[in-house]
Amino acid sequence: MTTLETKSLWKAHGGTQGVYTHASDACACPMTFAVYVPPHAAGQKLPVLWYLSGLTCTHANVMEKGEYRKAAAELGLIIVCPDTSPRGEGVADDPGNWKLGCGAGFYVDATEQPWAKNYRMYSYMTAELPAVIAANFPMADMGRQGIFGHSMGGHGALIAALKNPGRYRSCSAFAPITHPMTAEWSRGALTAYLGPDEALWRAHDAVALIEDGHRFPELLVDQGTADSFLEDGLRPWALEEACKAAGMSLTLRMQEGYDHSYFFISSFMADHLAWHSARLKG
Amino acid sequence: MTTLETKSLWKAHGGTQGVYTHASDACACPMTFAVYVPPHAAGQKLPVLWYLSGLTCTHANVMEKGEYRKAAAELGLIIVCPDTSPRGEGVADDPGNWKLGCGAGFYVDATEQPWAKNYRMYSYMTAELPAVIAANFPMADMGRQGIFGHSMGGHGALIAALKNPGRYRSCSAFAPITHPMTAEWSRGALTAYLGPDEALWRAHDAVALIEDGHRFPELLVDQGTADSFLEDGLRPWALEEACKAAGMSLTLRMQEGYDHSYFFISSFMADHLAWHSARLKG
Repeated sequence: MTTLETKSLWKAHGGTQGVYTHASDACACPMTFAVYVPPHAAGQKLPVLWYLSGLTCTHANVMEKGEYRKAAAELGLIIVCPDTSPRGEGVADDPGNWKLGCGAGFYVDATEQPWAKNYRMYSYMTAELPAVIAANFPMADMGRQGIFGHSMGGHGALIAALKNPGRYRSCSAFAPITHPMTAEWSRGALTAYLGPDEALWRAHDAVALIEDGHRFPELLVDQGTADSFLEDGLRPWALEEACKAAGMSLTLRMQEGYDHSYFFISSFMADHLAWHSARLKG
Repeated sequence: MTTLETKSLWKAHGGTQGVYTHASDACACPMTFAVYVPPHAAGQKLPVLWYLSGLTCTHANVMEKGEYRKAAAELGLIIVCPDTSPRGEGVADDPGNWKLGCGAGFYVDATEQPWAKNYRMYSYMTAELPAVIAANFPMADMGRQGIFGHSMGGHGALIAALKNPGRYRSCSAFAPITHPMTAEWSRGALTAYLGPDEALWRAHDAVALIEDGHRFPELLVDQGTADSFLEDGLRPWALEEACKAAGMSLTLRMQEGYDHSYFFISSFMADHLAWHSARLKG
């Protein structure tokens, strides 16, 4: 089992906010992630909620700006925040392009060169990192996992849940990219990582997964009406239509006047944690 | 009256988080500050709570990491976050020294060269910026102001309250520099800004102000026990002794395991807002 290196550890809201690095097999490079462990009794087992971040982010953005610790402490939730891509020396990148390469892993396993060696974020976040958490955080109850995220991370949360309904008990998203295979800002990355055959992209697209028969019990999505990416990148109505056609439960809340920033995310963070907690503790 | 330029405006927790710039007379340069206006009814007047930041910070650190908006929205408090010093072309600085110059205004009016032209943060935060707020935020009730801050900003809040007990109705601090004239990390700045005569520093030092007869009805201070600046820079016991000798009410809470970071500040932010709200609404 991977050895963790603790980069930082802060007391916060009665629990501990840590940042850790480990040698990732899936991504073939060192990977950094953040874990918040709420105050808890010795021996107590706690649900694990995964937060996947959006384009250009690392683990740190939501850790600093997401305002999740107060609610997580009150609800007794462990919050795990992975990075959004492999990084570092020898990792392929497309400098200057924020939609491809470092910071833009799109939570898929790349099959194309030069990306296939490191860009395996789907395996990383659904298999390798959960095993690392299970081995290193004895209070983590891996039988009770939920997942959520923002933008590209909302896409990641949706596909992780739809592809693994037995692993995750709850799923929500802030302003997710609902249908990346038809969105201009994600088509470039999908082409680079998965090749030009769009039929292969369907396994990495929430709307296509639902069209192709994948199901999840219920979803919560918050979307700001003043989000500048609403029309071109996010399009929650595509998810709404797919859920409707599939008879899947979706709570889509269009939030008047909110944009795509952490000011939006943090405004509804406590709501999402309560949503997950109700489903993870049931 | 100064014209404000709105740099950013985000919807957050039902209210608006704005960042503004204006031409400051006190500091003789453009100054930037942040204001959170909570959701409120038309015509409603709201108390104003000032947050002063610590060394190296701008208005942005607490705006991004302070986690004050949820509680401010619930309590109906306007939160104003000034910068910590003048900045920009022509403003004196000591690059590489984080304890003097830009980011280190220490909330005093400098009398010495080359600082006297711009480093007038005391006048700025107690007189000029309140007038700017009053003129531009019609929902601000300037008859109900409170003040708090962190580290150097805790020092600023304490001296502002002690010197103006009629202006501020409430005062609290996170890990304040309680006695800057005896702390190694602030003596350099006080020498530079105010000159070598330490008798003149007493008007800018909370402990000395109390010793010299200044009073404020009650103070709340949170201090982490794992704060690496506790012994050399902060020394809450100096404030405790001064308050005790003066018969002043101080609630000093030593918070086990917390450090000097925003993880500490944000953990007790809602507590402080509730403290101020109770005193600003009474």
